[in-house]
This record gives sequence, C-alpha cells and structure tokens, in this order.
Amino acid sequence: MRFVIVGGDAAGMSAASRAKRSRPEMAVIVLEKSNDVSYSACGMPYNIADPERAIEDLVVREAGVFREKQKIDLRTGHEVRSLDRDARTVSGTTESGEPFTVAYDKLLIASGASPIVPDLPGFDLPGVMALKSLEDGRRIKAYLEQNAVNHVIVIGMGYIALEMCEALRSRQIDVTMVKPRSVFLPWADGELAGVVKDEVEKNGVKINLGHTIERIVKGPDHQLRVLCSDLQLTGGMVLVAMGVKPNSDFAIRAGLKSDTKNALAVDRRLRTSDDNIYAAGDCADAYHVLTGKKTYIPLALRANRAGWAVADEVCGKEVELPGIMGTSVFKVFDLVVARTGLNMEEAGKNGFDPVSVTIKTRSRAHAHPGSTTIHLSMLADRISGRLLGAQMVGREGVAQRIDAVAVALHAGMTVEQFSQCDLAYAPPFSPVWDPLLTTANQLLKKLG
Amino acid sequence: MRFVIVGGDAAGMSAASRAKRSRPEMAVIVLEKSNDVSYSACGMPYNIADPERAIEDLVVREAGVFREKQKIDLRTGHEVRSLDRDARTVSGTTESGEPFTVAYDKLLIASGASPIVPDLPGFDLPGVMALKSLEDGRRIKAYLEQNAVNHVIVIGMGYIALEMCEALRSRQIDVTMVKPRSVFLPWADGELAGVVKDEVEKNGVKINLGHTIERIVKGPDHQLRVLCSDLQLTGGMVLVAMGVKPNSDFAIRAGLKSDTKNALAVDRRLRTSDDNIYAAGDCADAYHVLTGKKTYIPLALRANRAGWAVADEVCGKEVELPGIMGTSVFKVFDLVVARTGLNMEEAGKNGFDPVSVTIKTRSRAHAHPGSTTIHLSMLADRISGRLLGAQMVGREGVAQRIDAVAVALHAGMTVEQFSQCDLAYAPPFSPVWDPLLTTANQLLKKLG
Repeated sequence: MRFVIVGGDAAGMSAASRAKRSRPEMAVIVLEKSNDVSYSACGMPYNIADPERAIEDLVVREAGVFREKQKIDLRTGHEVRSLDRDARTVSGTTESGEPFTVAYDKLLIASGASPIVPDLPGFDLPGVMALKSLEDGRRIKAYLEQNAVNHVIVIGMGYIALEMCEALRSRQIDVTMVKPRSVFLPWADGELAGVVKDEVEKNGVKINLGHTIERIVKGPDHQLRVLCSDLQLTGGMVLVAMGVKPNSDFAIRAGLKSDTKNALAVDRRLRTSDDNIYAAGDCADAYHVLTGKKTYIPLALRANRAGWAVADEVCGKEVELPGIMGTSVFKVFDLVVARTGLNMEEAGKNGFDPVSVTIKTRSRAHAHPGSTTIHLSMLADRISGRLLGAQMVGREGVAQRIDAVAVALHAGMTVEQFSQCDLAYAPPFSPVWDPLLTTANQLLKKLG
Repeated sequence: MRFVIVGGDAAGMSAASRAKRSRPEMAVIVLEKSNDVSYSACGMPYNIADPERAIEDLVVREAGVFREKQKIDLRTGHEVRSLDRDARTVSGTTESGEPFTVAYDKLLIASGASPIVPDLPGFDLPGVMALKSLEDGRRIKAYLEQNAVNHVIVIGMGYIALEMCEALRSRQIDVTMVKPRSVFLPWADGELAGVVKDEVEKNGVKINLGHTIERIVKGPDHQLRVLCSDLQLTGGMVLVAMGVKPNSDFAIRAGLKSDTKNALAVDRRLRTSDDNIYAAGDCADAYHVLTGKKTYIPLALRANRAGWAVADEVCGKEVELPGIMGTSVFKVFDLVVARTGLNMEEAGKNGFDPVSVTIKTRSRAHAHPGSTTIHLSMLADRISGRLLGAQMVGREGVAQRIDAVAVALHAGMTVEQFSQCDLAYAPPFSPVWDPLLTTANQLLKKLG
C-alpha cells in the first residue's frame, strides 16, 4: 500500500505522521515543492515583527526528523504538476529540473493555496511581496533588512494584512493600506469594523478604501509606486495581501470536481470525486455547519484536522467531519477581533431570516480595575430562534470567548438555550452577566 | 398585587427591578437587613487589596436610586425573622429595634447565605472576621488599617480564602492558611491542585493542611492565636473562610422544604413547596444540569438569573431554568483556576463511569513569545462517551476557555462531538489545536 501525499504543510504532514503512526508498515511518500515542512505559517507576522529572530524559529519539526525518526519518505523540492488518475500517478519536476513520476494506491492532495496576485503590470517587480510560505516570510525579512525599508504599501485589509501592519509598525516602518472595496472588514458588523479601523489608524496606519489599483512601477528613486486612478502611493516594499486561492489546477485538469472557488470538492470523509483521492487543507472545500453547503474558508485547524481524518480513512477507520463555521480570531495592535458562524449577509443568502444586536459592554466586573470596552454582535434566525453567529472586538477576553458561541452553533442551540448557559464569573474576567449572555439577552428581547 | 422580597442583594434586587420594569403598577417591597443593596460582593477581595479605594466603590446602585427612580419600596435595616404562610406575612425587627409585619401576595425569599463559623471558643473575638456582606468588607478594611495588621491567619482554602491571600499579600501582609482537611482544593484534579498550591506558597503564603482547629485566643500581646492540637498560629487578624450556609432558618421553621444542605428547595420555576413563595440566590438550591439532581452551589450568576426568572413568573411569564453546573473561575496571584461540570468523585457518585485525562500544554502557538503552561483535566463517561466536566489552571486563556466546555455540557455533547468543534486559532492565543481540543483528543484515545 503506497500512500502518496502532495504537499508537506499542515494537512499533508499531519496525515503523513498519523498514517505512519498507526500503520508503520505503510509506504508514506510526501512530495513537497519547497524545502520547508511543518512550520507555523500563522506565526510569520510575529516573527517578521522581530528582526532578531530567525524565521526558522517557526519550524515545528525539521524534514530530517520526519525522514529518520518517523520513516516518512519525504521528498522536498518536488513540485507536482500533473495527475494521471487512470495510471494512478502524479508527476512533476524537482527543484533541480529533474522530472519525476510517483505511483499511488491512495493519494492525498494537500497542495495548499497561493496568494492571489492580480494580473496587472508591476506585480512581478522585486519588492512586491506576498506572505504565504515560510520562503515568503524569509524573503520579506531579508528585503526589509537589505533595503532598509521604512515605508510599506499593503494591498488588501484582511487579517494577514492587518497582522502585518502591526508587525511593520513595531519595527517603526510606516504603513499605508489600500484596497478597491470601499468597506473596511466587509464581513463584520459596521460598528465593530469601525472600532478596528480606528485602532489601526490610531497606530499611524493610513487606510485608503475604494481605490482600484492599476499598476505598480519602480521610480528612479528605487521606490515602488502603487498607482490607482485617483491615488499614488509610494513605499520601499509592497505587500499583496488580497486573500488566497487553492493550488488545485493540476487536480482540476485531471477531472477532479470543484464546487466552490476552485477548491477541490470533498465529502465529509474528505474524499474527492475520485475514490482513491482525498483532499485536505487550503486546497479543499468543507461543509458549513450552519448551512450544510460547501464553503471555502482556508484555516489552520481544519487543515490539521482534515489531515488526521484522511490518515484514519486510509488506515481503515471511517471518519466523518461535521464541518466548519469560519471561527477565527486575530490580533491587530491592542485589539482582538473574533468571529464565528454566519454574518447577516450570509445568513440572509442562506435562507434564514436573521436578526442581530450589537452591544458595547465591559470586559471586567463593576469597579474592577483595568476594565476595557468589549463590543459584541450576535445574530439569530427570527423564525426558529436559532443562534447563527457572533463577532467580537475588544482588548481582552475575546479570543477564547468566541469559542463558547462556536460550540453553541455546533450544538444547534437557540439564543434562549445559549442565554441560560452556566458560564464562569469572577471580577477580573467579566461582569456577572458575561458579555455573551448580555448580548444573548438583548437578542432574545429583539426576537420577541 | 403585593410582591414582597426578603433580601436586597443580587437575586432580590434583580427580581425587584425586573418586576417593576415589566409591571410598574405592582407594589414591590424589598426587606433588607443591612443598609447595603446592589454591590459587587465578588469584588471585595480586590477592593480590600487597595487601601486607597473606598469599599463603596463596589456599590452598583444606591438604595435611593431604587426608591426614587425605580419606585421600589426598599426598606433597609429590616431583618425578617419569621414567616406566617397562612396569614401570608413576614415579620421581623428593624435596625432600631421596631417590630414589623408585612403582608404579601407573592413572596420571594432571597435572604442569601452566611459564612460558616464554627461553634468553638474565640471565634467571636474582635479581629476574627468573615467576608460575605459589604459590611464585612468594610469592617475588615478598617480593622487592617486601625490595627496595622501585618499577619493574617486564614482558616479555609476555598476561592474566597485564596483571593483574600492575594489581596493581603499585595498589601505586604503575611498570610498563613490552615484547615482541617488534608487535601488542598479537594474538588480539583491532584496535579492541578498541586500547581495552585505551589503558586500560593511561591507568593510567601504558608499552607497548613490537616490541622483541626480547637479555639482562638487573644494573647497579652493583643495578637490572636489559632490553636490546633498540634499547631499554634499567631496573627493580628483571623479570616474565617470555610464556606457559606443558606439563610433559610426562618423559612424552614415555617415548613418550607429543603432537599440539600438547608437550602430552600425550588423547582425549575423557582417555586418553593409553597405556591405563593419563591426562593432565589444563595438561600436556594438548583438542579444540576448533568445529574438532574438538586445541588447547592451558591454563585452570583445563578442568583441574578433566578431573580429575573422569579420576576417573570410573578409577572405572569412562565420561565424554566435548565440548572447549573458549578462553572466557576478565580484568580490567585498570577494563576487562573476554572472548572465546570462534575469532577471524578461527583461523576462516580452520580452513576457515571468516569474516565479522565490531565495534560499540560502551551497557552500560545509554537515559538510565539510569552507562551505559558496551561494545565487541563477533562472527564467523560466511559459508556456513553458523554463529556462530564473540565478543570483548568494557567496564567492566561483560562477564564473564558472554560465556557466552551460549559456550553458543550449544556448541549449534552460527547467528547467526540466536542473534539470536532471549529474553535478559533491565532498564535497569540493558542496552539493550532486549542488546549481544549488536545485534551479532548487525549480523552478520546483513553475512551478507546
């Protein structure tokens, strides 16, 4: 039995390790295009923030350990470019230009995603960077250093863009952000988005919304200029952080199905439309817990979990993953921003009749020192009373608090049921009525 | 309609405010024995920690506001001592010694709880204090100040005892703890209890376990001596923190039923064994969500929630409270300690076949600066796989994290279901696999 895995990042290495652990006799071959495996990709902005730290600090396990200790046949520098489903082989080219073909009995495609880079002039100039792989992080750090960059233009305003703003500002680098859409954090409740925008601007970042980018040029001063129809921004580096797209082309060319956004379609057991091929991680889709529909929300936990599930499947243990809800959190300067479930627009589009409340309360008990404002938004379906999602912004108590809502969503709780939960209270951590309960109580009133 | 409430603290004032809000024409009479209403009792240790802050900072709403703005007939200094269920009256004595009798149509007993003080010689000496009411807090602060206390003996090691340790140490006061039982935090997993004990001792507090207290005496040096058979402890003040008991005597004498620990028995609608009488807060019991049995766990959230529910009931809206699980959190020095649900002993006694795991993991992602150790213990029923409870100790990420488990317990989730929840991840807040998920995964393995 040959279990071949395309991609040696979160999903791929999770699957490889788990399969080898439960079936040491199985041949597990991993084909990874880069030379980096098993690293904390999400940790890159925090590493970039500190010029003294090597990017290699983020490596969780070296390739050698996988090879020698875990007996995984890990082939780095192997980029897969095609899939032959009839022959059951994958083929590609090594770093040094050698062609290779590997046969599989079972295949896991865990080829990840790549940054979306618009097909416009100048996006290939040196100093125009995106951040996805460890190699990207390495290049950004080196570029900042070698070019003594003191001003970065960030295209895009998602969580990686915002985390990078914080990282760059902590290095005293000026940051200007720009994007075509006119709405800041379009997925978020407007009030909450405003709080985040204020925090970013308060930290000296200039935000330019609603500017269509036309090209990037390099000036005679060696500075990069991002040209919009009505705006020109100049900086020593440009960071393109406009989201990611699945690395699925070779698989789709081979006829594997995609249901959404070019992600490989998988069922709850991570099987693609080919019985011998699984997909997991940022190249694959998932079922949304609340809508039951396919969705593409590439996040680290799902990648790791799906990798494990594929390993179990390949080793003969049937696994069904319930799905995802986009539960996520990020930090931007002193604020923490979290969400789970649907927002108003998504809920409406998916056949719910959503009602929401947005409130502002305190992170600690009455009169407790150090209390800060915490903003919450929560929504439910008017007909069924079912809880549909929540968002939160605050300086403390946000990151783990969102998980209580996530669990409630998995359980299909109504707002009323959630509002009756016995949550923890102590003055340093919340008011007696936890902010979640206060929000649920307000939402209940509105549901009537 | 006369709605009479005995006790003007969390449950009583919540009920009074809510009843008056929904039925302004209703006569709402509150009889409170002290002169303090509506204050953050749980905030007292943190207030005592700071000699510069007035204890009145903890008052959320003054008596005058309830009277003038909310038109509640709030009678402070009115201690109820008897209940006549046939005549539908409560009677007692005012602070100035005047007898009073008040007739009710509906009665809420929200008389709270009192500290347990053993009936031993010397526990009535000046300087032997307990902490429950705002007046207790006021007296403790004044005593510490006026007597320049530099060493306090704390009898008991529950959360109030531990919070007070921290408060006293922050005032540079030496603290020695003593209790009869030989186990520190007996409700906690042994490994977690050990971590908390180490933290307390590291902060200069001396812990004496397994010493039966025989008496307290005042020495010629005006110091208090706590005498055990095999130990003598000396300090300027003694804090008795051995738990609380319901203030239910007058109600039980009148024939109201109690199912557990002298707490007034109430159904899910907060009705006592008398149709016209409700009970809520620290004088009443509750159903345990996991066992379905009566339990007495007096905590602030339940008191507030039950007060609201009684108000709704009295105003004609039927309410059923699902019950409690003892979800709680406290801070002691730099540690946060939290629990929810049953522990191994409770689970065994209640007919489950409990299996637990205890693990140690990190509070932040691999290589993220500032990461600290977080200890978790989780248990489930071997037969059904149902999640039964969790405990946690750590320096960050504990207080809100326990709530995710609490919600799962309310939903009756199995460990497997919980282990599949889509929780939030970002490097500053957790590893990719949240500590809760890692613990659940380990527990799943053990369940087999």
